[in-house]
Amino acid sequence: MASHGFWSLGGDNAGANTGSQSPSTPRAWCQAAAQKLSGGIGSKLCALLNVGEVEKAAEPGAKQPPETAAGTCGCNKSCNCTKAAVGFSDLYSTDLLPATDGDTKTMTFLQEVVDILLAYIVESFDRETKVIDFHYPNELLQMNNWELQDEPATLDDILISCRATLKYAIKTAHPRYFNQLSTGLDMVGLAADWLTSTANTNMFTYEVAPVFVLLEYVTLKKMREIIGWPDGRGDGIFSPGGAISNMYAMLLARFKMFPEVKEKGMSSVPRLVAFTSEHSHFSIKKGAAALGIGTESVICIKLNHEGFVPFFVSATAGTTVYGAFDPLIAISDICKKYNIWMHVDGAWGGSLLMSRRHRWKLDGVERANSVTWNPHKMMSVPLQCSALLVREEGLMQNCNQMHACYLFQQDKHYDLSYDTGDKALQCGRHVDIFKLWLMWRAKGTIGFEAQIDKCLELSEYLYNKIKDREGYEMVFDGKPQHTNVCFWYLPPGIRYMEDKEERKKHLHKVAPVIKARMMEYGTTMVSYQPQGDKVNFFRMVISNPAATFEDIDFLIEEIERLGQDL
Amino acid sequence: MASHGFWSLGGDNAGANTGSQSPSTPRAWCQAAAQKLSGGIGSKLCALLNVGEVEKAAEPGAKQPPETAAGTCGCNKSCNCTKAAVGFSDLYSTDLLPATDGDTKTMTFLQEVVDILLAYIVESFDRETKVIDFHYPNELLQMNNWELQDEPATLDDILISCRATLKYAIKTAHPRYFNQLSTGLDMVGLAADWLTSTANTNMFTYEVAPVFVLLEYVTLKKMREIIGWPDGRGDGIFSPGGAISNMYAMLLARFKMFPEVKEKGMSSVPRLVAFTSEHSHFSIKKGAAALGIGTESVICIKLNHEGFVPFFVSATAGTTVYGAFDPLIAISDICKKYNIWMHVDGAWGGSLLMSRRHRWKLDGVERANSVTWNPHKMMSVPLQCSALLVREEGLMQNCNQMHACYLFQQDKHYDLSYDTGDKALQCGRHVDIFKLWLMWRAKGTIGFEAQIDKCLELSEYLYNKIKDREGYEMVFDGKPQHTNVCFWYLPPGIRYMEDKEERKKHLHKVAPVIKARMMEYGTTMVSYQPQGDKVNFFRMVISNPAATFEDIDFLIEEIERLGQDL
Repeated sequence: MASHGFWSLGGDNAGANTGSQSPSTPRAWCQAAAQKLSGGIGSKLCALLNVGEVEKAAEPGAKQPPETAAGTCGCNKSCNCTKAAVGFSDLYSTDLLPATDGDTKTMTFLQEVVDILLAYIVESFDRETKVIDFHYPNELLQMNNWELQDEPATLDDILISCRATLKYAIKTAHPRYFNQLSTGLDMVGLAADWLTSTANTNMFTYEVAPVFVLLEYVTLKKMREIIGWPDGRGDGIFSPGGAISNMYAMLLARFKMFPEVKEKGMSSVPRLVAFTSEHSHFSIKKGAAALGIGTESVICIKLNHEGFVPFFVSATAGTTVYGAFDPLIAISDICKKYNIWMHVDGAWGGSLLMSRRHRWKLDGVERANSVTWNPHKMMSVPLQCSALLVREEGLMQNCNQMHACYLFQQDKHYDLSYDTGDKALQCGRHVDIFKLWLMWRAKGTIGFEAQIDKCLELSEYLYNKIKDREGYEMVFDGKPQHTNVCFWYLPPGIRYMEDKEERKKHLHKVAPVIKARMMEYGTTMVSYQPQGDKVNFFRMVISNPAATFEDIDFLIEEIERLGQDL
Repeated sequence: MASHGFWSLGGDNAGANTGSQSPSTPRAWCQAAAQKLSGGIGSKLCALLNVGEVEKAAEPGAKQPPETAAGTCGCNKSCNCTKAAVGFSDLYSTDLLPATDGDTKTMTFLQEVVDILLAYIVESFDRETKVIDFHYPNELLQMNNWELQDEPATLDDILISCRATLKYAIKTAHPRYFNQLSTGLDMVGLAADWLTSTANTNMFTYEVAPVFVLLEYVTLKKMREIIGWPDGRGDGIFSPGGAISNMYAMLLARFKMFPEVKEKGMSSVPRLVAFTSEHSHFSIKKGAAALGIGTESVICIKLNHEGFVPFFVSATAGTTVYGAFDPLIAISDICKKYNIWMHVDGAWGGSLLMSRRHRWKLDGVERANSVTWNPHKMMSVPLQCSALLVREEGLMQNCNQMHACYLFQQDKHYDLSYDTGDKALQCGRHVDIFKLWLMWRAKGTIGFEAQIDKCLELSEYLYNKIKDREGYEMVFDGKPQHTNVCFWYLPPGIRYMEDKEERKKHLHKVAPVIKARMMEYGTTMVSYQPQGDKVNFFRMVISNPAATFEDIDFLIEEIERLGQDL
């Protein structure tokens, strides 16, 4: 009878290698694993690998249990490799760990999920695959049973749910997914995120996240060095996104100028105003609304605000739509003169600091009091990964600490400076550091630089390709500073319309229709929007490391294919 | 020559099953996969599964490349199964996808990471394993090269980093890990989190997260039904933790009473005060500080605050330390009378709503305007997963929206009510929903109920065990309302000290020393703290589904073993 597990291979002759230094046979591996791991895990892993392989042969969704193959493993005696197949249609989550003898079932189940994920990953990078299998919300609600029930579902049903979820998900790793500032999927980053989920801990103290707290320390220091602060000194935190990072900065600026605001609130301080550029991110206004400053006190242009005290300037390094950089040196001169906190919102553009070719666009950033920098955008770190870097040490702690004694006991046996939780606005804080750290290790700084430079090259290629091409108009003059290329596509039918207003009215409808068609065909995704008096235009951004020159060519061909009849 | 890949098994006779409905042989599986998946993925997966198995035989960290076995796969012709072994010591992240022909290397690498994670998971549940391999920060910094370099590291080094990170991590899944309100590791939740990382998208629009947006809708509605709001109507959001959920609530309450605060800031409104109970979570004060209300305006006891307008009451359902529940009905009567926003901070205790036996402790919650409920605590959903539920529809949107037209275009082709991003304080928002949804599906409501009830049973067992035991004193009278059991352990040496002050002084040092010893032995972890005039006591909490009665017995024995000489 043919045996069906890898580890049972070569039953007899596998033993020949036993005892060699690099166990290259199943039996040797099993023995090494059994010796190395405590609690019989080696044997259990060994048993799993038999079972898992048998299970893989079962067709997904097939209700009948896979063929059960009896046999012996051929590895050491403590390994109970009966290779009983695991049929998920009879199993429930209560059969998994911590259930007694749940090891094998757990590993087989997780391996099955991983197989689904691996197939999805490979498919996502394949240009023949759709970026999206689009359905309208009411349709999608009908396409699967998404409702929550009182009774448990089988693990088989759980695997089906996983497949269904991925079937209708956006393939954000797809080389032709350009819809957001965060695109692409980094394999080392993904591995790190899987590990982070598995470690399932919280950033609040060294006690519960020793390695991650250290890695945050190491990484924030490195980022501050790149900003240009002496010896990388200062402070910082990874927060749940650029909007929260920007809000942290505003909070710190207010506290720095008026520390009494923490206890006494806004009634203890004069009317404050914050300044920012017209195209800054909406999070500056959201932050002002939340902090009790009010959106009207966020000044986008020079206005007379007598009696108001300017406390915060947010300069944007890489605006969301145009990718424009504010002149940081000039702004810092003003901030210095009037003693105003200078924040640089580099959520999108901050990563250019890693490029020797492009970092001049942020000249002056080292004069900032705080910098937002989102590695989950231009550096393609899996979501979420946003850092706020702060020049002054200790301020975050003073501003945000509440001394919760159930977390931050002062009589712990280790160096308490590593209990960084009280400087956060949050209590628990997700571990966002490991994926950035591991990717940085894998690429080196020069690897990130190459990745960023390549995206800028692609955007220059796109700009050069369409700037004089028939049927295209650029939204702003000159070469883009970042990878944002903003343009209108004019279908032949409206290209020569005489009536300017009529033309504009038509043009406004072009991008939404082309975008809707892109999504229905599933071939690519790119963003569009109006801005001020400008009608809907495409905002192409490139942060996807999988994109190539051919994908840029494809995008243009696709826009023309889908828009020519409009 | 013996072949070394599972799929090459039975080279000739595997073909016999080709064409059967449930492909139970490697060859049949390969063919089915090749037919089903686009872009040759079936064949690639098939090739991987050969290579992966060879690679598994290599000893981790061994520098020499694993034995290369040449052979044929035995599956269909399009499969190029040369089974070239992948040696990670010569590979870099740039060799992985999206690199040309990176499929096999990527899958082999990710499979290697998964093998590390599976071993870690099984080990974590093993009581013979340490909860923590503790090292002081300065030691840990020396134990590995954690620094970031300019040059890339090999994938071999990346795998070593993964192993090192896990070696020094806290095993939060360990049955004897009781240190925080969030403990344990749910296998379906973990699988869901791996899937979420792989999907790598953002909650801001239906466009980029169609399934996840729908699942959030379905789940929030279910949670509102459980709270008791008619037909589950209302609003809500998953936020990065309970502190942010509470801050959202305070923000909404202020906006509800004074909508002009959004534009005009706190200077447009009277002096506000918020009320909360003495043992409420520190996030209420953090929120007040951030929002410009000021911590002094958070009133924990009845004080005369003439001229101040009460706008917000935060009732706590399950305090952090004692696990106590505020009387929600009585509080709601007062809130109704004075027209004050009633918030229930059920971050810790909200999950008791799922237990028919314990939900009476939250009677009155249905009268609240908003409820914080963290499934990542008592329901053991992987971190982070915190919901804010809001009774009034539309308020969140009005309070927080900024109409960013680059994200929330009004001329999209689908129902825009599913673009929920503008109701968030954040811009990008992490996908926290899938793990909760998938776990709920796997357990059913009754599964969560059973899990929660079991934790409460364990805590009752602990309470009964120690309440009259020699050497123990309880911190508060009566049976705990939640799983929090707060107690002092008095070592024999101080048990009969006459001098009360001297005894207190000694007792204060007991818990920190026992805790430090626990961490150094790595046997268990439990929290301690002082509170008010009470010296350091242990706060035992049980949210870990892996814990058993024997683990409670172990905890008590361990405290006595480690503390008897003090």
